Amino acid sequence: MIAEVITIGDELLRGEIIDTNKSYLSERLLEIDVHTRYHCSVLDDPADMKDAFLRAARRADIVLVSGGLGPTRDDITIAVLAETFGRKLVRHEPSMAALVAFFERVGREMSPSNAKQADFPEGSEVLENPIGSAPGCMLEAEGTAFFCMPGIPRELHEMMVEQVMPRVARRAGGQARAVRSAILRTFGIGESTLEDELRGIADDEHVQLGFRTTFPDNFLRPVAHGATVAEARERLEAACRAIEDRLGVQVYGRDDESMEAVVGRLLAERGETLAVAESCTGGLLGERVTSVAGASAWFLGGVQAYANLAKERLLGVPAGMLATHGAVSEPVARAMAEGVRERLGTTWALSTTGISGPDGGTDEKPVGTVWIACAGPRGTEAHDFVFPFDRQRNRQVTVQMALDWLRRTLLGVAREVPRWVHTRAAGRR
Amino acid sequence: MIAEVITIGDELLRGEIIDTNKSYLSERLLEIDVHTRYHCSVLDDPADMKDAFLRAARRADIVLVSGGLGPTRDDITIAVLAETFGRKLVRHEPSMAALVAFFERVGREMSPSNAKQADFPEGSEVLENPIGSAPGCMLEAEGTAFFCMPGIPRELHEMMVEQVMPRVARRAGGQARAVRSAILRTFGIGESTLEDELRGIADDEHVQLGFRTTFPDNFLRPVAHGATVAEARERLEAACRAIEDRLGVQVYGRDDESMEAVVGRLLAERGETLAVAESCTGGLLGERVTSVAGASAWFLGGVQAYANLAKERLLGVPAGMLATHGAVSEPVARAMAEGVRERLGTTWALSTTGISGPDGGTDEKPVGTVWIACAGPRGTEAHDFVFPFDRQRNRQVTVQMALDWLRRTLLGVAREVPRWVHTRAAGRR
Repeated sequence: MIAEVITIGDELLRGEIIDTNKSYLSERLLEIDVHTRYHCSVLDDPADMKDAFLRAARRADIVLVSGGLGPTRDDITIAVLAETFGRKLVRHEPSMAALVAFFERVGREMSPSNAKQADFPEGSEVLENPIGSAPGCMLEAEGTAFFCMPGIPRELHEMMVEQVMPRVARRAGGQARAVRSAILRTFGIGESTLEDELRGIADDEHVQLGFRTTFPDNFLRPVAHGATVAEARERLEAACRAIEDRLGVQVYGRDDESMEAVVGRLLAERGETLAVAESCTGGLLGERVTSVAGASAWFLGGVQAYANLAKERLLGVPAGMLATHGAVSEPVARAMAEGVRERLGTTWALSTTGISGPDGGTDEKPVGTVWIACAGPRGTEAHDFVFPFDRQRNRQVTVQMALDWLRRTLLGVAREVPRWVHTRAAGRR
Repeated sequence: MIAEVITIGDELLRGEIIDTNKSYLSERLLEIDVHTRYHCSVLDDPADMKDAFLRAARRADIVLVSGGLGPTRDDITIAVLAETFGRKLVRHEPSMAALVAFFERVGREMSPSNAKQADFPEGSEVLENPIGSAPGCMLEAEGTAFFCMPGIPRELHEMMVEQVMPRVARRAGGQARAVRSAILRTFGIGESTLEDELRGIADDEHVQLGFRTTFPDNFLRPVAHGATVAEARERLEAACRAIEDRLGVQVYGRDDESMEAVVGRLLAERGETLAVAESCTGGLLGERVTSVAGASAWFLGGVQAYANLAKERLLGVPAGMLATHGAVSEPVARAMAEGVRERLGTTWALSTTGISGPDGGTDEKPVGTVWIACAGPRGTEAHDFVFPFDRQRNRQVTVQMALDWLRRTLLGVAREVPRWVHTRAAGRR
């Protein structure tokens, strides 16, 4: 079964908006084992739309169309689809009633141009839109099923899941197998290393393994197929366990669980608490940590010790230490972590101090040099890194590294420094 | 001149990544008055790619192709393009030398499969890639110019601007008018209000006005056309001045200048300094401020006073005040700003304290309630807001509001609270 996604709208071709509908639709299709072979976008132009519909009818079995269902002059998807395949437009009375009710509910006046949103090609099936004004429709033409959906992402998502996916799955019939997938999150291992370490884990017809980089992480995406949902789920679980066995603690979380959420869960389980002292990251570490709902159970706060004055006054870092070693140094990283831990009486404290760039580097301490310290009940550890990215990414990877280090410490496996570009060890400039 | 953009890669059709290259390329083309008529994406499949190339040759004058230039087995764009139009592949020695040099520079070994990245269709022109390993190329076939670029956005952007745009502009020749555009950044005004206030400013054939929402901002995008670059530039400047005249201080910046960069510039001009005290924003305000390169000239640091204990110990907020008024209150917001200003001796201090959600709201203080205070040489001001978004967006809009407030104060126009959902004033629950 070949699928095509067509998105419609001048704004897409002008590049004014990034088209997220295409990837959304293709990702959902994959969940029911339907593979997208073509994506295309066309202007709100009848000739171009007709051309795209005819080509799609020739080359695809199902076609998902998004956009052009609104009430304005530009919204001509339904009319052009009908014309392309020689269908008349007919008024769908239940949709008309739903439109009237919709406008009453949101307290806006229904304009005459809205009425066209209740007209559909003869022989098509109307797809309800409970959260917007534009219903969608399914039209079968020349052996291909066209599903027209609104371009507004929220409405599209609802209609895709509730109305379109069940119909597509039914059409795929016996051909469709059940599919289940997961995301396993890793940090600090390159994609080629992952590929090497996971060789053989997925090379059968039932489980495929994909890779996706979401800086600074690398995600693994096992996809399992089965005759039933239970079989697919079982195969997926086995694949996840096999991957976690090989990679161990390097897999830090599954699916939506972020690094900060994992750290928060581990701390909450232990009844332990965290504080931070940030120089080069300027607040990003605290921001990440407090993005977890309920963080107040285990995060007390911290200090953005950007200037030396702030390191002295808010954390008690001695001025002499700063003068002797510089702000980006092991003693200062240690003093920062210990200073904030002592002031807030937390179990753990993380500190960062470094040169994010673009300026401020020296031969001895190039841009990207960062010291991270982790203070806890058994003392303080500090390590330096040289990250090779731009200012923003150096800060992102610094925060992820600090959180991962605490995670490994909490799991009792931090004897080794997390894998990454490590200054001394890797001998990098 | 008709343009088409083709992006290539299985990962696009699986929906694993959102394709930002298409909108990027179309937006750049528009700057030189070239309009994109078709977007399409195909798999790493020779037959599908060939089909797409042939169709593009029939219907477009210039075709921008992204992806499939890497060293792996999947990367076949150049080979398929050559085959489609009956060209031989020939080794381009300068590219081979550049490849060898590139791998030496990044300290990685060059694998034999990398060598194919120096092979190009006979008669094509090689496009340099100074920041990656894959050069691009331009091939003219059947009257259409194909520009192949790497799929990695950073490399694509560089090649588009440096190599492709000048060549496309030259091909457009006399047909192309000069086009210049700008972004005017506003915060706190809705799109429909902007449309109303700017009515008539752009309704001639030479200047168009677009709108774009980039939460929490609304951007205006005037686009001016002229027979010459000078004329387009002059019209653009006149349009920008007219918009700024109408909206006044509500336009906070132009083009790439972020709110934090504007605040930093104003502080640096005055030789003044800033500190922050963040509760609900957890560090985001400091992070934004320190994302500006050179922020150390005017930002000293701050305190992430998430728990009450941190407000007391690090900022000296009295425990009694916290008990009486609660952490989300005017006295506490004031005490936080004043506490950090005093400790770091800065000219200005901003504080935030609120309920970001999803939990923690009450009837009196619903989720989204935020107090912001601004302490400075003429005393401390505080205001409360109720933001209607989710946790992450409530924090983003809080930070932008705090920065905008300081900006207005520095410009001497802060008598009014910035426009937004303001609790008491707007009578919201």
